[in-house]
Amino acid sequence: MNIITISREFASGGRELGKRMADILGYGYYDSEIILKIAENQGMDPNYVENILEHPAAAQIPLTYGRSFSVIHAISTNLLVEQTKVIKEIAALGKNCIIVGRNADVILEEYNPFRIFVYADCDSKIKRCISRAHEGEDISEKYLIKKMKQIDSARKKTKNLVSDIPWGQKEAYDLMVNTSNRDIKTLTSIVASYVTAVLGE
Amino acid sequence: MNIITISREFASGGRELGKRMADILGYGYYDSEIILKIAENQGMDPNYVENILEHPAAAQIPLTYGRSFSVIHAISTNLLVEQTKVIKEIAALGKNCIIVGRNADVILEEYNPFRIFVYADCDSKIKRCISRAHEGEDISEKYLIKKMKQIDSARKKTKNLVSDIPWGQKEAYDLMVNTSNRDIKTLTSIVASYVTAVLGE
Repeated sequence: MNIITISREFASGGRELGKRMADILGYGYYDSEIILKIAENQGMDPNYVENILEHPAAAQIPLTYGRSFSVIHAISTNLLVEQTKVIKEIAALGKNCIIVGRNADVILEEYNPFRIFVYADCDSKIKRCISRAHEGEDISEKYLIKKMKQIDSARKKTKNLVSDIPWGQKEAYDLMVNTSNRDIKTLTSIVASYVTAVLGE
Repeated sequence: MNIITISREFASGGRELGKRMADILGYGYYDSEIILKIAENQGMDPNYVENILEHPAAAQIPLTYGRSFSVIHAISTNLLVEQTKVIKEIAALGKNCIIVGRNADVILEEYNPFRIFVYADCDSKIKRCISRAHEGEDISEKYLIKKMKQIDSARKKTKNLVSDIPWGQKEAYDLMVNTSNRDIKTLTSIVASYVTAVLGE
């Protein structure tokens, strides 16, 4: 069984790369599927689960979401534990898979996953955001840069909860792919060939 | 014309990867060739040139090598300028090539080189040092770790002379390859395929 994990900067195209690679390789693909499973197990709304997991209280300055910090802290800790459980269940299926985000690279360390980090320069990420924006969405450079910083910062903090190696630092990955000015579809087949060759398939 | 630059942690196998990749792709290969050319142009001993360029005075606490700091500073500045000139001359030949180290990625920015960074975990680098050591060489872990830190630290400092992006930081590279526990020969063909595909050959 091969497990490929993809960590990525917001708007770098990492999620698309992961999804396309799963299609090319015929691997299982897990991303929002993890959120849905947690939500189902906990009887919670998936958006609520996602929101809490992207900004877990343990990694943040207190955010209340209308409740007291201690309640949110308990919920987010519980959801992080549940997320770890769901990710381990996916690995325990024993099937080839690609998992995007959620610190699966650290959680599944014992399976020796192939760990990819996807990143890009600021201009490329802004272009990507603009090309994918819904009508009426704020696509000012100022807003997009702020959003990128916020999301990546939350990812950094969440990674710090489970690992000593900071998010995005090379030592934590087997391959780091810069997608700046590259077409993700083309790049995906190239990365897929790399991973397939390294995993000796 | 394609230019591939390889920056690498000491003992990560980056130089071997570069040499093997040049052989696979039929590209020119430049590493110590640059030192020899500078030495020839300046009428200096190649070992002396290499020593100065690996520890340029401008990036170091004064090192005298038996001369005054100001003299060494002038020599090392002159050699850095000469190195830049030689690297630009290589690019101006207009032939596909691979250049290892020496900040060629920054110096040749205008040619849009494909920039690779090669790294590995400490254990793998120690094993690599031991496997390549000459008889009688100090191969104690303590010594090797000290040596790795010293050489990489000098590379960091030398990079700081020419770029705002620190040595080894992902933003400065197109691809970062972790060679830990990998066979360099096998990995080289895989990386070569990646680069060839990205460069659209």
